Amino acid sequence: MSVAIEEAHNGVIENHGGPFGAVIVKGGKIIASGHNEVLKTNDPTAHAEIVAIRQASKLLGRFDLSDCEIYSSCEPCPMCFAAIHWAKIKKLFYGCTQKDAAEIGFDDEFIYNVIKGKSVPEKVKVEMINRTECLEVFKIWENKTDRKQY
Amino acid sequence: MSVAIEEAHNGVIENHGGPFGAVIVKGGKIIASGHNEVLKTNDPTAHAEIVAIRQASKLLGRFDLSDCEIYSSCEPCPMCFAAIHWAKIKKLFYGCTQKDAAEIGFDDEFIYNVIKGKSVPEKVKVEMINRTECLEVFKIWENKTDRKQY
Repeated sequence: MSVAIEEAHNGVIENHGGPFGAVIVKGGKIIASGHNEVLKTNDPTAHAEIVAIRQASKLLGRFDLSDCEIYSSCEPCPMCFAAIHWAKIKKLFYGCTQKDAAEIGFDDEFIYNVIKGKSVPEKVKVEMINRTECLEVFKIWENKTDRKQY
Repeated sequence: MSVAIEEAHNGVIENHGGPFGAVIVKGGKIIASGHNEVLKTNDPTAHAEIVAIRQASKLLGRFDLSDCEIYSSCEPCPMCFAAIHWAKIKKLFYGCTQKDAAEIGFDDEFIYNVIKGKSVPEKVKVEMINRTECLEVFKIWENKTDRKQY
């Protein structure tokens, strides 16, 4: 966790983004580390955990990080939490809480609330269209003989 | 949506990943489009919506896409749904449903259930450690005179 904290600190000093760092560990060794780079890269998805996961996947040449653990200096937002699941990481350690982050202006509670189906002011209007046409590609996928299900 | 479907189709043909495509529209014009590239790039976060958001942000040079709309050939997973919020996109159109995706082997229900706090088999063990040390960087951020709150 000390390296995740150091990453977070570096990110703040360098004005790369919010004070968040993350580290991926495999077999007791750090294989990737990153910090929030939203301001540096103008990429709204460049949270510390995403940066570290992308780095680890690139290094290992696989999207399955089930033999890795992740250390994050703060409780992950829903995006990062879901990304940790997609990467099949089995263990997450975090430091600051979601509430701590909200207190310094990084509030993801509204996203958690939307996902939980709580009655909250709608920030994204959602509409389903063209389901039938979209399903056609799903059928092509299903009938694909050389598809790699993952 | 037809371009999002075309993207999904191309991704399947090229074996880049699952049958999902997304498009970002600004002022009635398509500014970015992408498809799932998890298999191509070995990046577990390379879902169609994330690919398209990253592309649009790069093009516009900003992480705030509040003047954009997103079309996704499938209902976004929690990671992409949260990313759409972080990008401040105001309108989401989607085609296939979460259930349609589960039927062809792409099931994100377990992540939604974990976030909703439902009692489900735990895929990621979560532990809070070193909160006090992690909070130190939050304090540095708060006291930073040139910080760009976002």
